[in-house]
Amino acid sequence: MSSLFHALFEPRRIALIGASADEKKTTSRPQRFLAKHGFTGEILPVNPGRTEILGLRSYKNLDAIEGEIDHAYILLNGKDAVEALAACGRRGVKVASILAGGFADAGAAGASLQDELVRIVRETGIRLVGPNSIGTVSTDPPIALTANAAFAVDRLRTGDWALVSQSGSLIGALLSRADARGIGFSRLISVGNEVDLAVGEVTDLLVDDPKTKAILLFMETLRDGPRLARAARRAHAAGKPVIAYKLGRSEIGQELAKSHTGAIAGSDATFDAFCRRHGIARVSMFESLLDVPALLVGRPRPTGRRVAVATTTGGGAAMVVDNMAVAGLDIAGPPRDLVDWLKPLGIAAGEGKLVDLTLAGAKPEIVAGTIERLLADEANDAVIFVVGSSAQFNPELAVEPLLRFAGAAKPFAVSLTPAADKSLALLTAAGVPAFRHPESCAEAMALCLLRPTPQAEPKLDPPTPAALAALEAGRASGFDERRAAALFAAIGVTTAKALAVPDARRIPAAVAEVGAPVALKILSADVPHKTEAGGVALGLPDGQTAALAAREIEKRVKRHVPGARLEGFLVQKMERGLAEVILGFRRDPLVGPTVTVGLGGVLAEIYKDAATRIAPVDEAEARAMIEEVKGLATIRGYRNLPRGDVAALAQAIAAFSRLAHDDFADVAEAEINPLLVKPEGEGVVAVDGLVLLSRR
Amino acid sequence: MSSLFHALFEPRRIALIGASADEKKTTSRPQRFLAKHGFTGEILPVNPGRTEILGLRSYKNLDAIEGEIDHAYILLNGKDAVEALAACGRRGVKVASILAGGFADAGAAGASLQDELVRIVRETGIRLVGPNSIGTVSTDPPIALTANAAFAVDRLRTGDWALVSQSGSLIGALLSRADARGIGFSRLISVGNEVDLAVGEVTDLLVDDPKTKAILLFMETLRDGPRLARAARRAHAAGKPVIAYKLGRSEIGQELAKSHTGAIAGSDATFDAFCRRHGIARVSMFESLLDVPALLVGRPRPTGRRVAVATTTGGGAAMVVDNMAVAGLDIAGPPRDLVDWLKPLGIAAGEGKLVDLTLAGAKPEIVAGTIERLLADEANDAVIFVVGSSAQFNPELAVEPLLRFAGAAKPFAVSLTPAADKSLALLTAAGVPAFRHPESCAEAMALCLLRPTPQAEPKLDPPTPAALAALEAGRASGFDERRAAALFAAIGVTTAKALAVPDARRIPAAVAEVGAPVALKILSADVPHKTEAGGVALGLPDGQTAALAAREIEKRVKRHVPGARLEGFLVQKMERGLAEVILGFRRDPLVGPTVTVGLGGVLAEIYKDAATRIAPVDEAEARAMIEEVKGLATIRGYRNLPRGDVAALAQAIAAFSRLAHDDFADVAEAEINPLLVKPEGEGVVAVDGLVLLSRR
Repeated sequence: MSSLFHALFEPRRIALIGASADEKKTTSRPQRFLAKHGFTGEILPVNPGRTEILGLRSYKNLDAIEGEIDHAYILLNGKDAVEALAACGRRGVKVASILAGGFADAGAAGASLQDELVRIVRETGIRLVGPNSIGTVSTDPPIALTANAAFAVDRLRTGDWALVSQSGSLIGALLSRADARGIGFSRLISVGNEVDLAVGEVTDLLVDDPKTKAILLFMETLRDGPRLARAARRAHAAGKPVIAYKLGRSEIGQELAKSHTGAIAGSDATFDAFCRRHGIARVSMFESLLDVPALLVGRPRPTGRRVAVATTTGGGAAMVVDNMAVAGLDIAGPPRDLVDWLKPLGIAAGEGKLVDLTLAGAKPEIVAGTIERLLADEANDAVIFVVGSSAQFNPELAVEPLLRFAGAAKPFAVSLTPAADKSLALLTAAGVPAFRHPESCAEAMALCLLRPTPQAEPKLDPPTPAALAALEAGRASGFDERRAAALFAAIGVTTAKALAVPDARRIPAAVAEVGAPVALKILSADVPHKTEAGGVALGLPDGQTAALAAREIEKRVKRHVPGARLEGFLVQKMERGLAEVILGFRRDPLVGPTVTVGLGGVLAEIYKDAATRIAPVDEAEARAMIEEVKGLATIRGYRNLPRGDVAALAQAIAAFSRLAHDDFADVAEAEINPLLVKPEGEGVVAVDGLVLLSRR
Repeated sequence: MSSLFHALFEPRRIALIGASADEKKTTSRPQRFLAKHGFTGEILPVNPGRTEILGLRSYKNLDAIEGEIDHAYILLNGKDAVEALAACGRRGVKVASILAGGFADAGAAGASLQDELVRIVRETGIRLVGPNSIGTVSTDPPIALTANAAFAVDRLRTGDWALVSQSGSLIGALLSRADARGIGFSRLISVGNEVDLAVGEVTDLLVDDPKTKAILLFMETLRDGPRLARAARRAHAAGKPVIAYKLGRSEIGQELAKSHTGAIAGSDATFDAFCRRHGIARVSMFESLLDVPALLVGRPRPTGRRVAVATTTGGGAAMVVDNMAVAGLDIAGPPRDLVDWLKPLGIAAGEGKLVDLTLAGAKPEIVAGTIERLLADEANDAVIFVVGSSAQFNPELAVEPLLRFAGAAKPFAVSLTPAADKSLALLTAAGVPAFRHPESCAEAMALCLLRPTPQAEPKLDPPTPAALAALEAGRASGFDERRAAALFAAIGVTTAKALAVPDARRIPAAVAEVGAPVALKILSADVPHKTEAGGVALGLPDGQTAALAAREIEKRVKRHVPGARLEGFLVQKMERGLAEVILGFRRDPLVGPTVTVGLGGVLAEIYKDAATRIAPVDEAEARAMIEEVKGLATIRGYRNLPRGDVAALAQAIAAFSRLAHDDFADVAEAEINPLLVKPEGEGVVAVDGLVLLSRR
């Protein structure tokens, strides 16, 4: 345990700066909640106007307190909060939290106040939670350092899941929802605006917390991606699942997240790519944050997707199965020995994939015998039992016999069709994952079986001298198409044979060299949209025609972009492929370098059919991306269509993704469009592309 | 009220055939539950082995009972149940229900037993619920005629929603889930295998039930589509929403539904089309069946999709907004007067679209004043308030002030972020729609604002003599391409100019007449896949070339389909279009005639990009279908692409859909592939197609 961890989650001496004696005020809550839930350390209220607060001695200021202070909770607003933080920094307080909002979450004035917080943190070395943090809570030992009204509950339930939230109010919501289901937490922390301590570092601390077995994240944005990435990998290695709900699936949601916390929201696809790469289980339903962990904790990911389902309610089980199938799981039928065992009991289980015991089979020995045989069957990877009315009226018949399978080697879950809180509590207490909704049961099982495990970061060899030279040329003179192509070629993507010529007279010779027919393109860093500017001619059959076309191009471009510096022409061999692919590279401000593969053309754009990953990717991952792009079925052997060179495409994707190397740090974006995929064995070829440098 | 309605839902004299005195037996339940919940009519147990059952006189057989019997619940199995039904029929019992399964739900033997039930119903005129019906219940007056264990509850809550379920066990699940939320039902009926009374007819009866304001359906299949269609339309006219959950979104789910009830499951898209046409609100989440009605009952569908959202919890509201945006709703910002009113209260509501009162605004007068102003604003169509921790601890602050908006003219709903059962019950009792999950809140609001209203069935003029002649020609000689084209042309779809010639010698003259270039296709009802058989040549520039090509075609086809009767060639003008469309027509066994529009080509097939409707459709609906096909964006004015003749396409879809007319009843399927869409004003043209007749 680091000293930061102790000061954050298990402080012994806590200063409450701006504490209030007025119980109606939010600022009185931390002191009251600490006391109420049995904090055994020292509470040190600070308030210049009082000598006593709620029965404790109150201090005029921080300096009046002797000895070390582990954690100071600053309950003042705006400028006062900034000054209090500075005082904490001077005083050597290890961790401070700030309750107030009104910083980056509140426009320009707030942002400049927040800058002052950043400066103090940097200068004094104090660690800061917030601003806009509703508090940090541990349940064992009980330390309810929070202003969140939800902690007015009488009893703080202990548990072994930790909750890290960027939204303060959601802490209360999750606390109450969990409590209603008999679930408690180990730690709960509201990280607010994350000026200093952010989700990633907090997650990292929790990986080493012996009281935490799963880490739940409620996220609005991602501020410390690399840190969270490392933490998620360490958590995986430690057998602690990291489960995230993130706002921003819709564009309006992204906007809201932005205005709500003053953060960049990022795109949903890049966050998905981030979770996939680093092994974070992302849930789509809010309630799933509480539903999913029980199925993941202490369990390596199974290798298959086959779920066996038994039930006392055919209709209820059908709902679970329907949702699981939509989520991409397969249903495994019953093994022979189960069918044979059930037959003399009058239960015909052999017909469908579902083992429907019916109400008649709602007997402890039948239920237990069924689950036992399903768990022993190697033809499935997980087992679900769906309970009907007996869950509500007779838990002893079909729920109690399930309890003993809590520690099953295979994922085993129970879905309750009626409202059956007692059975739910029974199962939860025994450690059997239990679900109230067929949708969240299906989502949890899908995450359990299909969730990503962290992928090894592909080794990134340093760029070759040729690649660095190509980059340098682009930096020096701007990345026109030719220089972009040179860079792509240098990092290992085959590009169409081409020659640059300074003027039209050299064109016939160039055509002779690259081979007709050719495409002709204007070269100019000042003309980004060559086609729109009339700067392209395609399918020119010979040198003569090409030279004529060049003169026309020159005229059109000069009219379209007056004053553009023209640097000649690119004479490029016309290429054909079975499919046109777009390759994109982008340094995302939140998750870092990403690579995207999509089908080229207007239809693919309309269908938004693309796969995104954190870059770099290796060829195996590139193949997974190709599989994910539906439209690329056309080159994967669909119907009678000829197969494309998928292996070469995967190679090209992997090569292109190496732009993620730090030596290319100023490559903000790059795109190859189109990359033509030729028939199997004939490779791929990049026909056009661009590189955008960030301003340095 | 019909006498059928009374016998079904409000019987006064009920026979229980096969009643048991053993309380452990399921067959004892109907008598016990009727008594427990206060049935005031006469219970008439029938059991040849006893003279008394649970304190009531028991009859040897039906004939021992004097006077009329309204409803007989047959609690016997298999053959005995069949005989009991026959006895009921002879005796003039109005309605019988059969509890047992083991009929069409249990393979061939069961199916033949079920056939006997069908015969008895037909011969005696008795009306039958089931088999496989767990019972029929009314709450006011209380008549718990059911064997469903869920009715062991102490108190049967009354309510004004009726529940019709094809799954018996789901009745109990929904009863318990509703009860836990303070919701009761007017009637609950398990229709089982629907040998006679099915969902449609029952729904129709409930439309006239003064105690029912909404009709909830839990469906596994659809057995009486036309009847349900009529009932849904009558329900809409009566202001009673019909809300359906249907299994079978996945293929496995469809299979399960099939094996579970011995029914055809049908495709999910056709059921969606059915709901859309007839104004049924289909929910995707199970819990939504209980969540949605409150928002729909007694409320015409608003005309817009703009929802205003206010909250005390920014994070909680962001989840609701995110889900609503994904569901296709827009978020309306606050009106000026609200912003101005909140400002002096220290609440800045003008910045985002969300009115975040924050915890500071959780005060009755602020909450009420906010809702008042939002409801009065014409810039939104509905209002949602999202409550945070005050819902859990201080309902008087942010929940009680909401109760008075129960009867608001606009849809008004409340979403609770924490677990807050008391607040939920408060709101439900007051009649304010309240939600526990952001996902179901969003789904309910989307259904409230976007749900379909029943569409007028387009008037179907009788087919023209030409169309009937074309159909007759196809019936007589088989539908080869030429005869299919003749039928399409006769019903109003422009087809490519073409001439049929009996042999190659006539081809040059035909080419001269239709105009080169041409396509040449073999004519033979024995060669359905012309292209695969080598029976097609495209782009032939003149008569000479075409005649040569014809001889090659003949050779290839003879090799490919030995013995096929060749009827000459079709010489067709080559056509070009901006887009290729597929038009499909199919008589679906469940929902009846459907028409489907999709983009042609392999990509559209991969993306499953198509729109399906119940046929016929008018041009307005055809335009809505065109809008729904994403890939048709290419002809709707996407980017700089030229616009296609969307009006002509809509006309063609509407014309094609007229195959739904009864005079075409033996047209089982028809397809035009491709239909070429030309530039705006230039029309569409069918290039190839087929017609499949059902065997008569």
